[in-house]
Amino acid sequence: MDLLSIKDPSFLKKMTNAQLEALSEEIRTFLIEQLSKTGGHIGPNLGVVELTIALHKEFNSPKDKLLWDVGHQSYVHKILTGRACQFDTLRQYKGLCGFPKMIESKHDVWETGHSSTSLSAAMGMAIARDLKKEKSYIVPIIGDGALTGGMALEALNHIGHEKKDMIVVLNDNEMSIAPNVGALHSILGRMRTAGKYNYVKDELEVLLKKIPAVGGKLAQTAERVKDSLKYLVVSGMFFEELGFTYLGPVDGHNFEELSENLKYAKKTKGPVLLHVITKKGKGYDPAETDAVGTWHGTGPYKMETGDIIKELNAPPAWSALVSETVRRLAREDDRIVAITPAMPVGSKLLGFASEFPDRMFDVGIAEQHATTVAAGLATQGMKPFLAIYSTFLQRAYDQMLHDICRQNLNVFVGIDRAGLVGADGETHQGVFDISFLRSMPNLVLMMPKDENEGQHMVNTAIQYDDGPIAMRFPRGNGLGVKMDDELKTIPIGTWEVIREGNDAVILTFGTTIPMALEAAEAMAEKGIQVRVVNARFIKPLDEVMLSEIMSANLPILTIEEAVLQGGFGSAVLEFAEEQGYTQTYIKRMGIPDEFIEHGSVSKLLADIHLTTEAAIENLTKMTYKVTKKAY
Amino acid sequence: MDLLSIKDPSFLKKMTNAQLEALSEEIRTFLIEQLSKTGGHIGPNLGVVELTIALHKEFNSPKDKLLWDVGHQSYVHKILTGRACQFDTLRQYKGLCGFPKMIESKHDVWETGHSSTSLSAAMGMAIARDLKKEKSYIVPIIGDGALTGGMALEALNHIGHEKKDMIVVLNDNEMSIAPNVGALHSILGRMRTAGKYNYVKDELEVLLKKIPAVGGKLAQTAERVKDSLKYLVVSGMFFEELGFTYLGPVDGHNFEELSENLKYAKKTKGPVLLHVITKKGKGYDPAETDAVGTWHGTGPYKMETGDIIKELNAPPAWSALVSETVRRLAREDDRIVAITPAMPVGSKLLGFASEFPDRMFDVGIAEQHATTVAAGLATQGMKPFLAIYSTFLQRAYDQMLHDICRQNLNVFVGIDRAGLVGADGETHQGVFDISFLRSMPNLVLMMPKDENEGQHMVNTAIQYDDGPIAMRFPRGNGLGVKMDDELKTIPIGTWEVIREGNDAVILTFGTTIPMALEAAEAMAEKGIQVRVVNARFIKPLDEVMLSEIMSANLPILTIEEAVLQGGFGSAVLEFAEEQGYTQTYIKRMGIPDEFIEHGSVSKLLADIHLTTEAAIENLTKMTYKVTKKAY
Repeated sequence: MDLLSIKDPSFLKKMTNAQLEALSEEIRTFLIEQLSKTGGHIGPNLGVVELTIALHKEFNSPKDKLLWDVGHQSYVHKILTGRACQFDTLRQYKGLCGFPKMIESKHDVWETGHSSTSLSAAMGMAIARDLKKEKSYIVPIIGDGALTGGMALEALNHIGHEKKDMIVVLNDNEMSIAPNVGALHSILGRMRTAGKYNYVKDELEVLLKKIPAVGGKLAQTAERVKDSLKYLVVSGMFFEELGFTYLGPVDGHNFEELSENLKYAKKTKGPVLLHVITKKGKGYDPAETDAVGTWHGTGPYKMETGDIIKELNAPPAWSALVSETVRRLAREDDRIVAITPAMPVGSKLLGFASEFPDRMFDVGIAEQHATTVAAGLATQGMKPFLAIYSTFLQRAYDQMLHDICRQNLNVFVGIDRAGLVGADGETHQGVFDISFLRSMPNLVLMMPKDENEGQHMVNTAIQYDDGPIAMRFPRGNGLGVKMDDELKTIPIGTWEVIREGNDAVILTFGTTIPMALEAAEAMAEKGIQVRVVNARFIKPLDEVMLSEIMSANLPILTIEEAVLQGGFGSAVLEFAEEQGYTQTYIKRMGIPDEFIEHGSVSKLLADIHLTTEAAIENLTKMTYKVTKKAY
Repeated sequence: MDLLSIKDPSFLKKMTNAQLEALSEEIRTFLIEQLSKTGGHIGPNLGVVELTIALHKEFNSPKDKLLWDVGHQSYVHKILTGRACQFDTLRQYKGLCGFPKMIESKHDVWETGHSSTSLSAAMGMAIARDLKKEKSYIVPIIGDGALTGGMALEALNHIGHEKKDMIVVLNDNEMSIAPNVGALHSILGRMRTAGKYNYVKDELEVLLKKIPAVGGKLAQTAERVKDSLKYLVVSGMFFEELGFTYLGPVDGHNFEELSENLKYAKKTKGPVLLHVITKKGKGYDPAETDAVGTWHGTGPYKMETGDIIKELNAPPAWSALVSETVRRLAREDDRIVAITPAMPVGSKLLGFASEFPDRMFDVGIAEQHATTVAAGLATQGMKPFLAIYSTFLQRAYDQMLHDICRQNLNVFVGIDRAGLVGADGETHQGVFDISFLRSMPNLVLMMPKDENEGQHMVNTAIQYDDGPIAMRFPRGNGLGVKMDDELKTIPIGTWEVIREGNDAVILTFGTTIPMALEAAEAMAEKGIQVRVVNARFIKPLDEVMLSEIMSANLPILTIEEAVLQGGFGSAVLEFAEEQGYTQTYIKRMGIPDEFIEHGSVSKLLADIHLTTEAAIENLTKMTYKVTKKAY
């Protein structure tokens, strides 16, 4: 059938399993082809083709609510709800979002991006449904990786207690982003290989009759004997203990099994956990045989060969620069331990892990735990390196504040994907970290101008032993600068003038330095000399340099790829206020008070006027007012 | 014995159980008497007297690490580690902290305050111990309530997987702060009433022999049969499934049982969960018979009668004002649903719960889940009221940002205990919320000047339907003002001039308004007229009023009982910058960049110069500079 002609999933109702299978093949072909051009989360989506079709056949969306946890596996859902024609624009500026999005479709009833939120949201929806005395099915679809996130576990505990009607679909692909970790994973493994409740029912009856009567305490606990036998045959005792009816495991690529079990789940009162086994990357060899997670999400690739199209001779990725420098230092410093919440691939920690298997811990999707494990390590004189994306550090706000900063512990936090991240969009932009970290006492926060300064900063962080220290670095690759052989330390709280000038000053750091230099060049052509400062320490500020600048009454333009509310520019305003530089003319550039959607970083920056042109405009105004030199 | 003479716990090693029992009685008497004068967490501490003694007898602190989760149950530990003599100063300014504190004692190896952190910290310590090839026992002591916190569950999952040696003591008092909720609680209940593994070992042998051979699938799964039988007799299958060796349940007031099980735990490889049943308030009738949680933590009380000493004719508590106003509105607005993470007592929601049992959800210690349940409710047109303490909202930073604000959902967040909280100290001060919330797009954030405005703000929040709205309010009681009968709505983003004056302006809100008025009075005596503005909307600012003030070039003093970094004062600085009021003289008062310890709020405020005197001093300087009128 023509996927582009699909308006809504109602056409599925009358289809036979054979027709559904044909449809699955068409969707797979479509995805493999489309994503080879745009990139995207190919692995997760190929894994849920049949499951998504089965769900839309069995339920009536949007009356029934399908909640896609994390949400990067919602492409098939998007196709079935009339969005196939938009896949050319996937994850591009003003194009189709890579995650569920309410404004795109009434079938997207819950927006995701970060993991483990769907069960809590489903609980809220179930409470609302029951209070309003409505009838509908609420169906969160959550992966085995997302299930280990603390908030999903909090939700399981509450849902099992409240006994709300809900069908939790556990999409178990034996691998979250990275191969999965944790005890829960072992439990799921045992379930996968175990028999199924329905199939052994008869045998259970037989067994029950054969069990002899025993005296003593055991005989009194008839209920427990029953539970025990249930455990013998029901794989999902862990979930049954929590108050769920466990169904499964079900082959997630078999329409008959899926349909049978979904129908059974619909008839079951109270919360159901339907354990579905899927194969990530199913139907596309390169993705299906991927062992480490490369095909979780990719850029464009050659469809025939599965070769991912890489930029030739690209400078080193920031993540690799940081992790490899930590690895280098770890050879001589056995205090160093690396911790990642499920991102060993993204954070480029595989090299570290193979060299130091005992000193690397992937704790799964568990940012809170990861952060406080680091704190615990630091209390014992170790030097933990917590590798975490800016957007996911949001999950560990309290652990950063209450456990690490309050106890002033020597943890090095490598804040990856800081700033705009592009295609992943508003749930993943790393633009809030400065605002939320800057008010944490004891923390040193820095960002390097290039990968050479980056390696020295990593060394600085490892050598620093006065408390927590964090280094932000952007998504993507470095600038290709020459790397020093020897690692240096950078004095804490010192900035660096990278261009001289006495008419105005730009204070900036990280990715916006090239923009500042360009603007300064342009101003020089107008005869105005703009000093550009690499304000590499966001906290503490270089108070000596700032005082000098403010005493000289130079106008200051701050530029940051981060939210303006409470950001670096505000720190400069605060310093001027505290020190009584009430006459200093300060102008801030940064991200306004709104969520920034997906798209290429350059387009997004243009959209919010975080550009060289805007910097020039500001500098022109500022120097006109102060020096009267312009025009 | 003389408790005051205890220097360290080594004296316990040689004591008999009878002597330990006598010691327990002495400690109980001491605690009941001391806390009647100072107040404190009496219930939790009376519950762990024997447990703490047994732990210190069996382990060698600080070589062995005792980690007190939450930490308010560490009083007995403090007595046994030489701090009995400081109990007169408990929770007072410069006195003994109510939580573990490293600077107080080398026996305090992990500082707590917020719940559920101890397992993650213990994991970090265990990794460090093993890497350093040291030998020591690591013993986190965690309550049944704290165990439902997401990060504790994340930690269980990871610890069970890594199989690190660790003895987790589950202090199960059948009630966290409020009576406990959640499926895990039911599991613990079943364990409590079930038999013990050791005691039924023989019976297990008998049973194993009696089981007949069965054919088919079951016979192939010998491992599962064994597991099943284990489940039959081991209560703690839930924990065993997660990879722990479960021991218990143990009577936490019986030294023989405690000692036997601790010794067994020490010999066991891998992670052990020792399930200890204790009675909160044990040995003091009023506390022991407490059903709702009043005796969890109290102020001073009459020792003989257990009457809690209350301020006579005190104005209504803020929590009650807010919850009761929501309750009043809920009578006519059936969209309203209240959610609390384990604080129905503290948030004064018992009245709401009894009137609307179907519309009130205590989700347990699970702030993340609570917040996203609220988001889920809001997607269905409900109006959730999330009652949460400022300090605990820190746990839900990402859920506020990613789930509520990003989706612009109509959730009303009642931020209780905002500002300094006094005796609970640095882990509980509600002073970061403005800084971390102000950068969240779509959020309205407000704080009322008194309880009458408070009730109108609650109404405003309930009627508001353009997105999330939060109201901060302080710990303690209102001012005793007259209450309007009819509820009004306050236009969003409007401030109120509460004292006229044209020489300078104070912008402030909530608890610091009286200070501002006093300072203005004092300035009037010097002939300087200070305008005082109730800046009740922290976000959005009253831009009209602010423009007016800045256009008139009046000096502005901002005062807030919150951190200065990125706070309200910074918002005013940012506005001046954005609007180009570069000549406005702005001075900020607030909480400096450090953690604020325990003590009475007035003493703490004096310590950080957040006082009327400091305001007068600032105003004097500011008006001297601008008006030249002063002196």
